[in-house]
Amino acid sequence: MLDQVPTLAQLIKTLQQIPYLASKSIYRLATHFLEMDEQHLEHLCAVLLKAKQQVLRCETCFVWKEKDRACSFCDAPKRNQKLVCVVETWQELLTVEKTGGYDGLYHVLGGVICPLEGVGPEQLTIDALIKRVDEKGITEIILATNQTPEGEATASYIAHKLKGKMITISCLARGVPVGSTLEFMDKLTVYKALSERRPF
Amino acid sequence: MLDQVPTLAQLIKTLQQIPYLASKSIYRLATHFLEMDEQHLEHLCAVLLKAKQQVLRCETCFVWKEKDRACSFCDAPKRNQKLVCVVETWQELLTVEKTGGYDGLYHVLGGVICPLEGVGPEQLTIDALIKRVDEKGITEIILATNQTPEGEATASYIAHKLKGKMITISCLARGVPVGSTLEFMDKLTVYKALSERRPF
Repeated sequence: MLDQVPTLAQLIKTLQQIPYLASKSIYRLATHFLEMDEQHLEHLCAVLLKAKQQVLRCETCFVWKEKDRACSFCDAPKRNQKLVCVVETWQELLTVEKTGGYDGLYHVLGGVICPLEGVGPEQLTIDALIKRVDEKGITEIILATNQTPEGEATASYIAHKLKGKMITISCLARGVPVGSTLEFMDKLTVYKALSERRPF
Repeated sequence: MLDQVPTLAQLIKTLQQIPYLASKSIYRLATHFLEMDEQHLEHLCAVLLKAKQQVLRCETCFVWKEKDRACSFCDAPKRNQKLVCVVETWQELLTVEKTGGYDGLYHVLGGVICPLEGVGPEQLTIDALIKRVDEKGITEIILATNQTPEGEATASYIAHKLKGKMITISCLARGVPVGSTLEFMDKLTVYKALSERRPF
């Protein structure tokens, strides 16, 4: 049926190229856009294009910032300018920020080293991090990459690169999550919690 | 953090208003749009707006059609013009079409009767269906609404409205599992349900 309505077919094809949309939702989404009134659709497009023009990455920490404003981290005098938490993506930064228990700066890597997907250290912001440590007098780096093989490898790579510099390198505590029961925990987590046990 | 980047906050808020997007994906999606190159983003917006202007509903069967083209069903001489399959939405039409086992026309209701959500018969295309039966010499109506309470009630309402007219009213065979929606059904089940339709 779609070949008889080429404009709709093109809309579907374009939506299919957007990641994180469930393939079964594409048709519902297309219907939603066609049923929206034109004003709202124009507003949506305007917001998308405005965001693309107005929002860019801070050149120091690579967190999104407004084009004509200072970075909300690097230029915040209240935050600890000597402490940097290294995260894979901006979404993970939001999770750390939500805890309300961190007042240092961030460094967004933009991904993890993954040779199978063609991502090497040069595609990430690792060089900028090393430069930042040298120039800004950072005293502690928290490596908060995810506990996946790629995340761990990236953390190791960064730690190796920072070797010999006068800074503390730490990583997130690994162990049993709050609210969970030991019975249903996977054995690797329990093993790590055991071997990295701390004084009570 | 978002209050310091109002344009990004607005983008997130706008994306949150789009249905069928998992709330956990919104931030990833926003990042995807910001990382897209501008040309692609402009293309996406152009496709959305063009679809909105070029694609509209056929005035007879309410299926999406190209503005300056004939309807791919109502104006198709090869299809059985006496047989109409009534579906809730366009997505369900696609599922029936995929079976390859149906050569009649369609009638898209645009939803189901649901008083709790303020949808009465007049919000749907039921009156147009009755008019169509009277004017176009339809001989059989297949009620293919979903087997949900609202879908069944809508089918009953339509059957009641068509009472006394010289047509056959059928519904899909009960091969379709109760509680599921047609859109997500495998095509063989839908095919069997179509070929084993029974009098309503």
